[in-house]
Amino acid sequence: MSSRTPHGPVPDSAVLRARLERAREAAAGTGLLIAPGSDLRYLLGQAGGSLERLTTLVIPADGSPALVVPKLEAPGFADLPLAELGVEVVTWVDGDDPYGVAADRLRGSERVAVSDFTPALHVLALREALPKAEQVLAGPIVREFRMRKDAAEIEALRKAGAAIDRVHARVGEWLRPGRTEAEVGADIAAAIVEEGHVLADFVIVGSGPNGASPHHGVSDRVIESGDVVVVDIGGPVAEGYNSDSTRTYAVGEPRDADVAATYAVLRDAQQAAVDAVRPGVSAESIDAAARDVIAAAGFGEYFIHRTGHGIGLDVHEEPYIVSGNGLLLEPGMAFSVEPGLYQPGRWGARIEDIVVVTEDGVEPMNRRPHDLVVL
Amino acid sequence: MSSRTPHGPVPDSAVLRARLERAREAAAGTGLLIAPGSDLRYLLGQAGGSLERLTTLVIPADGSPALVVPKLEAPGFADLPLAELGVEVVTWVDGDDPYGVAADRLRGSERVAVSDFTPALHVLALREALPKAEQVLAGPIVREFRMRKDAAEIEALRKAGAAIDRVHARVGEWLRPGRTEAEVGADIAAAIVEEGHVLADFVIVGSGPNGASPHHGVSDRVIESGDVVVVDIGGPVAEGYNSDSTRTYAVGEPRDADVAATYAVLRDAQQAAVDAVRPGVSAESIDAAARDVIAAAGFGEYFIHRTGHGIGLDVHEEPYIVSGNGLLLEPGMAFSVEPGLYQPGRWGARIEDIVVVTEDGVEPMNRRPHDLVVL
Repeated sequence: MSSRTPHGPVPDSAVLRARLERAREAAAGTGLLIAPGSDLRYLLGQAGGSLERLTTLVIPADGSPALVVPKLEAPGFADLPLAELGVEVVTWVDGDDPYGVAADRLRGSERVAVSDFTPALHVLALREALPKAEQVLAGPIVREFRMRKDAAEIEALRKAGAAIDRVHARVGEWLRPGRTEAEVGADIAAAIVEEGHVLADFVIVGSGPNGASPHHGVSDRVIESGDVVVVDIGGPVAEGYNSDSTRTYAVGEPRDADVAATYAVLRDAQQAAVDAVRPGVSAESIDAAARDVIAAAGFGEYFIHRTGHGIGLDVHEEPYIVSGNGLLLEPGMAFSVEPGLYQPGRWGARIEDIVVVTEDGVEPMNRRPHDLVVL
Repeated sequence: MSSRTPHGPVPDSAVLRARLERAREAAAGTGLLIAPGSDLRYLLGQAGGSLERLTTLVIPADGSPALVVPKLEAPGFADLPLAELGVEVVTWVDGDDPYGVAADRLRGSERVAVSDFTPALHVLALREALPKAEQVLAGPIVREFRMRKDAAEIEALRKAGAAIDRVHARVGEWLRPGRTEAEVGADIAAAIVEEGHVLADFVIVGSGPNGASPHHGVSDRVIESGDVVVVDIGGPVAEGYNSDSTRTYAVGEPRDADVAATYAVLRDAQQAAVDAVRPGVSAESIDAAARDVIAAAGFGEYFIHRTGHGIGLDVHEEPYIVSGNGLLLEPGMAFSVEPGLYQPGRWGARIEDIVVVTEDGVEPMNRRPHDLVVL
């Protein structure tokens, strides 16, 4: 057995009912099959269910939604107001054909959308069970409304942001010469939970040359005096909404002479991008705001990733702050602004805050200073 | 950014090279696309890579394998002996078409297999990139050899089993009346890491009526004197192989009069199933060995799940110990033997050990006594 059903407060039935109805409308005749994960949590208040045995929320174009769930796992959904939501629970046991059960509810649908992270295991079986229906992704349908956070969602993001800020405020307790990135990372992971997250979802401690690899995790590299260290950390709070914040630290005076001037450009670029956020501007214009400052300083080649990603029940979701994304920002959209500069083989730096678009501008979820933190 | 690339020892290049070759042979002309996860760790020594951006190991029927990976994440694979393995690394950046890159290596394949937990996001895009190829699952191909563990894999399972046994030996430190399941579960989770796992993958503390729900996790229920409590816990060790062991505890004398007699049947059933394990017998015969003892005692209706699941780099993998699985056991196969008896609304009990099939019988990975542990 194994069970990792996330726990936490469930939104009001009225909120969930409205989300289910919006999903059906947005699907515009396409049947939806929502697998365990953040889409399910958004629509039903719980992400749970195993990925191995089929659990899926079936939302037909007409008729009431049904949760197809292994009998063993049904108790995990017992706390949800499914009856109030008009969601029928259909359980199955080993030996049954759950794909047929789900398919029967979507007979006649010309298109069926599966949520983006449905395992191939189920994607292929569902295709076989619905051979006449075109199979598409539910992501483009669901993200349209998941992208726009309501007041309760934004409050949960504030809570997550404040919690991760408290962790960054304590990094000096652990980040010292002679310790490995992994040792420092373990202390940070413990603090992420202590400060109010339900788990430490990710911890990057990129010291010296490792800081030049944006997706580095932690390693056994021993931190040395003079290292520049990228610390990128986050996790979900009880409501399921995530924090994700990066600050760059220097262990004593930086070894490399170019750190101060380069970092100053990064700080200006990050601030320029945050300042550019408001309703009606495009996602790519925020990316450009950061990139232009960096390019003007001649550091363009050192900024090797997009400026940011949306955040909410997923650490990475829409809207992506990247060249080519013409999406116009709207109040309630939440995303990271995290330009970085990477000097291969030497050092790297990144500054990351989560921001939410307001009626007339921007509200940062993270409040720690943006300066290089010299320990 | 986020990074959760698992760390840990990488098998010898010779071992990995042999696995890659076996995969190609087993695929018998089908092109393989292996997503991040346990299949990738088995074949390359690392599970890593994000599920959001396409990372895939392409193993064509002819020609050398290639790892298609976002440029950002390539450093995460730098420690692997990819050159020695003859695996070409093909990086891509936002804006490229990674699906086309992967597809180009499989042109002419009539069938393409995607690993079972590839997200729909990539499954559908790969189908579009290879419209002429039949898309099937890689699981049935890969499990044929992943199911048969080598000496090093079995040693890692022994290490994991001993580590979780040490945690069960300490459960009395935390499981007390007046504490919630969640509080006890948090202490157990910390001990799972202290005793040698890299993380606490799952913790079930099912007290009183919650014990009657096999997939219950933890809750805020306060443990009472007289409760029977199912504790099902596990996680991976550094090598990536998992523990998974259940013992049932009583907080003082059990409240329910039927516990002792019912538990005795469960213990006999679990032992009968373990005793039945040897090469050449079917997976379903092990399930029957447990089920027959329980049915003979008249408790058949209270045993509501299969007897076990394979375990290795995944907590749940082949072989499944379930009615209908005629697979004949072979040396090196590893799985759980975990019958349970569930009295709805009152209490539940389960005993779970991981066992490995030997040349002439069975070796249990867990060594804790099977009696009800009265605290």
